[in-house]
Amino acid sequence: MLEQLHFNENGLIPAIAQQHDTGEVLMLAWMNRESIEETINTKQVCYYSRSRQKLWRKGETSNQTQTLIELRYDCDGDTILLLVDQTGAACHTGERTCFYRAWDAAGE
Amino acid sequence: MLEQLHFNENGLIPAIAQQHDTGEVLMLAWMNRESIEETINTKQVCYYSRSRQKLWRKGETSNQTQTLIELRYDCDGDTILLLVDQTGAACHTGERTCFYRAWDAAGE
Repeated sequence: MLEQLHFNENGLIPAIAQQHDTGEVLMLAWMNRESIEETINTKQVCYYSRSRQKLWRKGETSNQTQTLIELRYDCDGDTILLLVDQTGAACHTGERTCFYRAWDAAGE
Repeated sequence: MLEQLHFNENGLIPAIAQQHDTGEVLMLAWMNRESIEETINTKQVCYYSRSRQKLWRKGETSNQTQTLIELRYDCDGDTILLLVDQTGAACHTGERTCFYRAWDAAGE
């Protein structure tokens, strides 16, 4: 599978996390080859933090872990879709999903 | 809203398209400021094609358009979530969603 993935010039690929049963889109983060392998092996989602430049084991400090249910990838192999079981909140703000803001014509 | 978005070094931001009623994640593509404005104004989703380096009006040639239902954005303003009504297939392969392949332990 890893051979079918296309990483960008920084060795990264975007990954969408979706709650497997409700369909909520929780967040988008980035993975490198090592974080994908760890995610598959441990069934706990691990990203690559671009700001910290190291593996980011989701929930390691917050306990808001994501258990991997299924890993899917798109037609051209440059995006991953993680179906997960999210413990608590996905977002560091405490919101369930990072996409808690909607564009509002009046507020633009 | 546009002022709250963070575009990358190429002036782009990733956008996830999700079927608004079923929750299916359809695809991920990229938008620039102009494509976001056009999407909001026309209610028809317009991306930016990185390969063709121009606006990509989804369905312009295929008629597989995406009507915008709601535009959401994440906590740090660097990803967009488009809730859409997809006509036909989102994927150029004819599949409903681009994420039609799953990682299979046996097939790796």
